[in-house]
Amino acid sequence: MTTIGLLNPGEMGSMVGAAVRSGEARVLWAGEGRSAATHKRASDAGLEDAGSVAAVARASDVILSVCPPHAAVDLAKEVAALRFAGIYVDGNAVSPATAREIGGIVEKGGATFVDGGIIGPPPVKPGSTRFYVSGSGAERVAQLLTAGPLQAIVVPGGAGAASAVKMAYASWTKGSSALLLAVCAMASAEGVEDSLVREWKISQPDLSARAEGASKSNAKKAWRFIGEMEEIAATYAAVGLPDGFHLGAAEIYRRMAIYKDGPTPSLAEVLRALTPRRPA
Amino acid sequence: MTTIGLLNPGEMGSMVGAAVRSGEARVLWAGEGRSAATHKRASDAGLEDAGSVAAVARASDVILSVCPPHAAVDLAKEVAALRFAGIYVDGNAVSPATAREIGGIVEKGGATFVDGGIIGPPPVKPGSTRFYVSGSGAERVAQLLTAGPLQAIVVPGGAGAASAVKMAYASWTKGSSALLLAVCAMASAEGVEDSLVREWKISQPDLSARAEGASKSNAKKAWRFIGEMEEIAATYAAVGLPDGFHLGAAEIYRRMAIYKDGPTPSLAEVLRALTPRRPA
Repeated sequence: MTTIGLLNPGEMGSMVGAAVRSGEARVLWAGEGRSAATHKRASDAGLEDAGSVAAVARASDVILSVCPPHAAVDLAKEVAALRFAGIYVDGNAVSPATAREIGGIVEKGGATFVDGGIIGPPPVKPGSTRFYVSGSGAERVAQLLTAGPLQAIVVPGGAGAASAVKMAYASWTKGSSALLLAVCAMASAEGVEDSLVREWKISQPDLSARAEGASKSNAKKAWRFIGEMEEIAATYAAVGLPDGFHLGAAEIYRRMAIYKDGPTPSLAEVLRALTPRRPA
Repeated sequence: MTTIGLLNPGEMGSMVGAAVRSGEARVLWAGEGRSAATHKRASDAGLEDAGSVAAVARASDVILSVCPPHAAVDLAKEVAALRFAGIYVDGNAVSPATAREIGGIVEKGGATFVDGGIIGPPPVKPGSTRFYVSGSGAERVAQLLTAGPLQAIVVPGGAGAASAVKMAYASWTKGSSALLLAVCAMASAEGVEDSLVREWKISQPDLSARAEGASKSNAKKAWRFIGEMEEIAATYAAVGLPDGFHLGAAEIYRRMAIYKDGPTPSLAEVLRALTPRRPA
């Protein structure tokens, strides 16, 4: 029996936790101080509340870190301070450099580090979601991860490689969505949105629907894309590529972060939020 | 009989010139000091060589400016200095602010200004290409422009509106192509291109072909996209949107400008040119 500690059961984490539960693996989480909504999500996913992060670290052979990218380093520091000596898998959307930094932190605490990156929606049905892993220990972790609907794929190249796959993938999906929303916001601010939409009907027939989709599916999640875009920008800068695309995308998602807890806004509302300043 | 001066017959300009020639309109250009290739293009398009820009301005009722965006202001200054008093149409990929600046320059010289923006390839067959126009005089110019395969569309909103349509449109097409090439360059620099391409096969099945296409169709034209991306960045900044997407795109096309005169490079060559610096 393997014991896996899942930190933390957010929208993605809870489903990853459910996916790795099996006859051979139980999954713990740390419920102390967490909201009722998180408790419900974790319990629905069949995760066992061990109480504190310290209790999770004490009882677990493997810790899976699945959290918003801006929280990934602090979580690693917390676990390292507990002298966790099992396998620490960082599955977050962070740059290769941040992944290696996290690796250094948890290894200093005594753990074995495995770099990871998740591509796809929270895994409910098989085939939707891949968990990329790299580094020593990746093969063993890959086996654990594939108990349920998740597919694990080992990336050659050591720690940082799995994160690089995730960064490259998201740099298109979330970067291009932000760009498309910026395009519409610009046309709207300049008063030419109707002309643009008519031109798109002729020569880019999928773009209007795609802009609607980018607004609808990202508005409530935008708050946690900010850190991810900043990690991608850092990834680009590290290889000498311009970081402006994703610093721009971070700013777009920052302006959409107001929609975190409310109802899903219309595209027109989002475009107004993106351009508070209008041309003279 | 209307006389139209076409400045200058590049790849786009020569075909625009051919498209506006008709029983009621002749088209002049200024061959002085131009290359043999430009002379051949203009002559193939049925344009009449009037010699100098001064001679074109003297003889023309309408001047169409179709040139790389970085040259648009200087061309307007040259024509204004000649006291051209006809209709000056700027059809270039410039920001609304630059379009209005050009309008001010040529109006000071005595001309009537019409803002324009061309969307589509050089117009050879009907339906491929639209010439957006705005400002007073746009209706009259629209009639002239539709003699051949070009379609003219009047945009409400005065000078700058046609340019805004063009900027918004190109900010997606050329901006997203640059982003996609940057994505591939990053993955390649990090050594995970194979993993990315395999993931794309599963979840983004058109992207690999699209990256190949973005490289192939833009490599030799990249030199003239630099100024266009900078004009788009300025357009975004003017309405308070992040300019980083298109400053990034300008940098991508700047690194591809080396392919202007040579053969079309492979995608792998382009990706190497985009990331001269590799991670440590």
